[in-house]
Amino acid sequence: MKLWDKGQSVDELVESFTVGNDRELDLRLAIYDLKASKAHAEMLNAISILSDDECAKLLTELDNLLHDLENGEFVIESDFEDIHSKIEFELTDKLGDTGKKIHTGRSRNDQVLVCMHLYMKDEITEIKGLIKDLFDLLILRSGENSDTIMPGYTHMQAAMPSSFGLWFGAYAETLIDDLFLLNAAYRIADQNPLGSAAGFGTSLPINRSMTTELLGFKTLKYNVVAAQMSRGRLEQQMASAIASVAATLSKMAGDVCLYISQEFNFVSLPDELTTGSSIMPHKKNPDVFELIRARCNRIQALPNQITMVTGNLNSGYHRDFQELKELLFPAIDKIKDCLYMMHFMVKNLKINKNIMDDTRYRFIFSVEEVNNKVRNSIPFREAYKEVARNISNGSFQPSRKINHTHEGSIGNLCLDQIKSKFYSAYRI
Amino acid sequence: MKLWDKGQSVDELVESFTVGNDRELDLRLAIYDLKASKAHAEMLNAISILSDDECAKLLTELDNLLHDLENGEFVIESDFEDIHSKIEFELTDKLGDTGKKIHTGRSRNDQVLVCMHLYMKDEITEIKGLIKDLFDLLILRSGENSDTIMPGYTHMQAAMPSSFGLWFGAYAETLIDDLFLLNAAYRIADQNPLGSAAGFGTSLPINRSMTTELLGFKTLKYNVVAAQMSRGRLEQQMASAIASVAATLSKMAGDVCLYISQEFNFVSLPDELTTGSSIMPHKKNPDVFELIRARCNRIQALPNQITMVTGNLNSGYHRDFQELKELLFPAIDKIKDCLYMMHFMVKNLKINKNIMDDTRYRFIFSVEEVNNKVRNSIPFREAYKEVARNISNGSFQPSRKINHTHEGSIGNLCLDQIKSKFYSAYRI
Amino acid sequence: MKLWDKGQSVDELVESFTVGNDRELDLRLAIYDLKASKAHAEMLNAISILSDDECAKLLTELDNLLHDLENGEFVIESDFEDIHSKIEFELTDKLGDTGKKIHTGRSRNDQVLVCMHLYMKDEITEIKGLIKDLFDLLILRSGENSDTIMPGYTHMQAAMPSSFGLWFGAYAETLIDDLFLLNAAYRIADQNPLGSAAGFGTSLPINRSMTTELLGFKTLKYNVVAAQMSRGRLEQQMASAIASVAATLSKMAGDVCLYISQEFNFVSLPDELTTGSSIMPHKKNPDVFELIRARCNRIQALPNQITMVTGNLNSGYHRDFQELKELLFPAIDKIKDCLYMMHFMVKNLKINKNIMDDTRYRFIFSVEEVNNKVRNSIPFREAYKEVARNISNGSFQPSRKINHTHEGSIGNLCLDQIKSKFYSAYRI
Amino acid sequence: MKLWDKGQSVDELVESFTVGNDRELDLRLAIYDLKASKAHAEMLNAISILSDDECAKLLTELDNLLHDLENGEFVIESDFEDIHSKIEFELTDKLGDTGKKIHTGRSRNDQVLVCMHLYMKDEITEIKGLIKDLFDLLILRSGENSDTIMPGYTHMQAAMPSSFGLWFGAYAETLIDDLFLLNAAYRIADQNPLGSAAGFGTSLPINRSMTTELLGFKTLKYNVVAAQMSRGRLEQQMASAIASVAATLSKMAGDVCLYISQEFNFVSLPDELTTGSSIMPHKKNPDVFELIRARCNRIQALPNQITMVTGNLNSGYHRDFQELKELLFPAIDKIKDCLYMMHFMVKNLKINKNIMDDTRYRFIFSVEEVNNKVRNSIPFREAYKEVARNISNGSFQPSRKINHTHEGSIGNLCLDQIKSKFYSAYRI
Repeated sequence: MKLWDKGQSVDELVESFTVGNDRELDLRLAIYDLKASKAHAEMLNAISILSDDECAKLLTELDNLLHDLENGEFVIESDFEDIHSKIEFELTDKLGDTGKKIHTGRSRNDQVLVCMHLYMKDEITEIKGLIKDLFDLLILRSGENSDTIMPGYTHMQAAMPSSFGLWFGAYAETLIDDLFLLNAAYRIADQNPLGSAAGFGTSLPINRSMTTELLGFKTLKYNVVAAQMSRGRLEQQMASAIASVAATLSKMAGDVCLYISQEFNFVSLPDELTTGSSIMPHKKNPDVFELIRARCNRIQALPNQITMVTGNLNSGYHRDFQELKELLFPAIDKIKDCLYMMHFMVKNLKINKNIMDDTRYRFIFSVEEVNNKVRNSIPFREAYKEVARNISNGSFQPSRKINHTHEGSIGNLCLDQIKSKFYSAYRI
Repeated sequence: MKLWDKGQSVDELVESFTVGNDRELDLRLAIYDLKASKAHAEMLNAISILSDDECAKLLTELDNLLHDLENGEFVIESDFEDIHSKIEFELTDKLGDTGKKIHTGRSRNDQVLVCMHLYMKDEITEIKGLIKDLFDLLILRSGENSDTIMPGYTHMQAAMPSSFGLWFGAYAETLIDDLFLLNAAYRIADQNPLGSAAGFGTSLPINRSMTTELLGFKTLKYNVVAAQMSRGRLEQQMASAIASVAATLSKMAGDVCLYISQEFNFVSLPDELTTGSSIMPHKKNPDVFELIRARCNRIQALPNQITMVTGNLNSGYHRDFQELKELLFPAIDKIKDCLYMMHFMVKNLKINKNIMDDTRYRFIFSVEEVNNKVRNSIPFREAYKEVARNISNGSFQPSRKINHTHEGSIGNLCLDQIKSKFYSAYRI
Repeated sequence: MKLWDKGQSVDELVESFTVGNDRELDLRLAIYDLKASKAHAEMLNAISILSDDECAKLLTELDNLLHDLENGEFVIESDFEDIHSKIEFELTDKLGDTGKKIHTGRSRNDQVLVCMHLYMKDEITEIKGLIKDLFDLLILRSGENSDTIMPGYTHMQAAMPSSFGLWFGAYAETLIDDLFLLNAAYRIADQNPLGSAAGFGTSLPINRSMTTELLGFKTLKYNVVAAQMSRGRLEQQMASAIASVAATLSKMAGDVCLYISQEFNFVSLPDELTTGSSIMPHKKNPDVFELIRARCNRIQALPNQITMVTGNLNSGYHRDFQELKELLFPAIDKIKDCLYMMHFMVKNLKINKNIMDDTRYRFIFSVEEVNNKVRNSIPFREAYKEVARNISNGSFQPSRKINHTHEGSIGNLCLDQIKSKFYSAYRI
Repeated sequence: MKLWDKGQSVDELVESFTVGNDRELDLRLAIYDLKASKAHAEMLNAISILSDDECAKLLTELDNLLHDLENGEFVIESDFEDIHSKIEFELTDKLGDTGKKIHTGRSRNDQVLVCMHLYMKDEITEIKGLIKDLFDLLILRSGENSDTIMPGYTHMQAAMPSSFGLWFGAYAETLIDDLFLLNAAYRIADQNPLGSAAGFGTSLPINRSMTTELLGFKTLKYNVVAAQMSRGRLEQQMASAIASVAATLSKMAGDVCLYISQEFNFVSLPDELTTGSSIMPHKKNPDVFELIRARCNRIQALPNQITMVTGNLNSGYHRDFQELKELLFPAIDKIKDCLYMMHFMVKNLKINKNIMDDTRYRFIFSVEEVNNKVRNSIPFREAYKEVARNISNGSFQPSRKINHTHEGSIGNLCLDQIKSKFYSAYRI
């Protein structure tokens, strides 16, 4: 376990410290390195650094590796420090001198960069898909529960009538803001850094526009120093976007943990979705929601972690950036798991229809009463004082009739407008 | 100074603790509260809660207050806990019962929200303007310095030839990513929360689409609970966007602090832009760049601070949100100051033209030499090994000729393409 | 307001950006700079750099300034960039050449450092005093409420019987851990950095042990580079200690905000300690507790802010450190305000004696029932299953008798032992 | 890989989400759970809940498991959600009814708590040992290099003479402050939480003082709610202490990365401790120091991560706390690895003896010159101005003789005093 217990040689010690668990993390980048290597080979062929024959051989071999990968037969052995040296080795092993040419006009730095950009694009697309599933479900449940009144809170004090239609719909609409941020992160990722080499370009007449097109990037990150500088920044911007999704999920999970308490008792879960206690036979705990909250809170700390590692580093590559994979990759997995589990749990959440029967909620109709007086032309501040007096002297008799009609209110949830807003952001 | 030394009554103690320095912070929201109150009054008139006459009086009085504000004659006296109660008082004081009607169908919560949304939109626009000024200057200086070669670094080791053309241009292009994030924050801000009242809407038949149009919002935040939930989230999303700008500035400032050292000596400043030491007569310190770095690093910690305050709060308003003004508002001022000062300093930065004369940089041409061999059909890995041998045995004789031609390289900065990318993001 | 609107000259612009609001922040350091200057003068006299007469004059003048300070007659005019240049000016203005000698053998850097160390020591002492007041009150209220049973929660689910005796006592005992951290911060502060000059000492034969004794430091920070390196670190360690106090207060405030809700209804406040709503006449909001929570959560983000500013700075002074005063000083004020207000509010908190009458809490006695069976020699896991069966089939009839006797339990709060532990940490 | 691709049943899905990788993390707690279970069994015997025979059997079986653990034969199969249920299963499997009695009077919560407290104590002891090794080496290297002059920097500008004796010694003395914080964390950990059960104690007459003594705790965390509340807080306090160690290491590593650059060239490394580049044959990169810096910066973000997960949770256990193991445990491993690697690298760091030959450092002797004039009775401010004039008109002729004699200066490193301060903190 301990680095220094292994009786290692100096080389092994340095290598085991520097490589860390890069091999494992890199596996998810393999597909992107293979694709980018194909585009790079085609481009080297177009500028006559690779002959047609050399190029064809490289493409075939890269396709073989892609095939291995798909079949789960691709492994990064411990001889290799990362995915990139592994692939270069395979090509050289199979193709000799031709394989040794693949690294012409590029560097490990832009190889990693182009992988990261392609990977982020794919992950954002996948996360948006999971958000869409959750959004659709929340809209559905909002519509189903439009008549289920619950108290709305300010300062954790029961304040005014709300509804589960509003509650579900609020989280649906909030997800749209998260899409805006994911779209911005996507746009940042969608700029090709390949060709920046070690961060300062190359004296070879490479054609970066060609690889941009082959790899499906919208545009180039032109300036090679800017391309290199996107390392760390891209991770940060991705982290900020998923942190925003995490904020949405964490808040919703926290609401459920409160509403499922004996005191609130607004919602419940089937027994198989709760867990018990090692000593209290009556307990039914909402562990899944607690863990969604906790894991999403961890993700909310991620942008700060990334800044802590990258802050005050001068321009140019530093090995420090390697640590970011270990920070970001598991967080991407976690946010997807949390989106999936939230969908699963929301589908199974049972809503108590009789919340408002409890007498402790009688005062939440006081604003309705004030508004009734306002409609009868009593100035708002006068009406407010009158109702306050009645509450204070015990004569307040609330009518429990709710008649909210404006856009986005209990009686007019505007689900269609919200859907339309969501899908116009989703399709970008 | 101390809260408890003032011999305060209970009421005063509670008030001075709860109000904090809201009055001072709120002053910048006054203009938005007045504008939103005008729109609200017009809408109340349209739904017949205010008569034409009442509405006209309110609009006149609100215009008077706007006028006072412009003239610097508007103050929030210590009798008022915030800007909103101050304005309502003024209207009531001047117009009696008519003034008391202005708060009909709204709440302090959506008043603050609509002010924040309008304020963020204006600030984003202003920040984008300052970014544009800096961008234009960086492009200019990139072009001017396209021939000034400097070492490019990886691992802080002199690695390959770079140029001040690349260095200035890199920060210019990086600012485009910051625009993407500011645009996303703008889009989030550009949704009208007015009409959500305390977060649960109102039983009055208000017309939220009308105020949306009057206030120039692109769309509504429909769901009233979602509108309330944007409190804290909007601040967070704004903070993340300016933190990204801050990251760009901090890194550039850090580069200057390094490059101006005696060891690097790449850049210098006119004496009047440096500061001296209290004991060392020879010192010329780059304090402005150090403070840009430090203040921008503070701003980078802001999103985390906001999450710390808002995390794990259940849905609905909490007084905790008040603290966010004190966190966000000064940070907005600071990022604008830093953008302005960076522009001022970059304009005055002198570039040393003879950096590469130092023999310690002779090895940075080794990749050029490798590439020359590659062009003569030696496979990359072979060429690499040959040059490594020559360096190691002392026979490496670098040619210092640089001929980078590809997109975004030393010899082809693509400033026009970068400008076009910037302005298409700027104009949104 | 805007830096660049003032029509400033270059010098003014640079100065207003670099000075920031140092003058205001520095006022609290004045007393320490005066005291440290006195010790420095005495030491310079002892090593014959100042004559007896010069020393006497300087001490008199410094005492005069201390006197002015006490009387509120000391101001830092805008001509001076900080407290240190102001004091040196005063001495030179009054004493001519003698005044010009005060800066011999020291630098602005160690002047600031020694002020910070002395200031931290005083603030820690004051904070510990406020903690003691709160501790004593919590112990008192724990004893008063030892018989008031409340539910104890796990997973926010009512779990087992607890008591307000336990609840108050828990926060009391938790404060002891905060003392441990404050004591560690004190010990770090209690090392004299004076004499490190700009961070590399001086060629003059100063006597640092003498100033250590005169200023009441326990020991020296010997190594002058280490002394300089304590800048930023001392602030961080202080911030971590008060962040721990803040965590305690924030959690307690959060508990009250929950327990005062209509759903829990465990505690209440006199009306004058709650605030109302602008539209809901029935509301009584616990704003003071919400703001204690929010402000303490801000303080919990402080250590991270400081790291963000100081991280990845190389050894030696950087102007960046100046920003830390603006981060730390208001946080010190805030934690003291929060400790004071928490004491005030806890004193006034009313506890509902009849919490357990509600039938929803009947199951929390299930573990007591399991334990009763255990006492009758049924293995724990068997007893657990039997009670679970009874709960499930509705036959569970809880006895509500509570008989906890072990150390730290409902029936044996160990307040004396906790007090003894507190005071042994307090007195250090 | 994906949670939802596994075709899992509901139970499996919930379990795989909730268990996470607890099994793997828990393995390091096994030894503590076994020891605490032994103490708990002895105590249950002393209060007659276990017979002598039952107790003896349990102790034997627990010793067998300890033996398995030592031999690497202990595994937590996937049937068990954590170490605690695994151990209870083993006891029940071997001993039937007797095994079922082990959980009497305790809960999973205090089991985890006592494991965490014991584990933290051991880890702090181990970390202090690694710090001692590094401290001793730094003191050694400080002494060896006391004559090697280097520039001291302020604002990254060469300022005054410093030495590698000072530089090594500074990091040694700074580690003492880290010890103070580790000692505080130890003292917090050294309070027995066992017996707090689910956080509210038990109705059984357990003897917590007895387990406190058996497990070697200095005292009890008396109040059972306080004991439960230490969950999250203990992790936070441990994280803050190791973050302080990390700050020290990160700064030192950053210094090396700068000093090893071509521009500074103060230090160098044997080739086998550097790494090369994939395209630049001349590169020798200090990856180990970069990774120490990066990993230590990650650790500096840890306290904030923990607060983010635990902030605004009400008192009582929440499942969220489970996430903290995954945050803290790897960080503990990392700080130990970094301490070990720093020791290894510092041992091999070569110091350039001729740094000061470079003419760019001639001005750093200006303060010496000022001080010489001061010794000849010229007031400091006059001397300062005279030297500044000479530098400005080119007539400054520095003497390079250094004669610093005061405590902690170049000529008087006070290594013995620093050692004595270190060891008195180390031995606590």
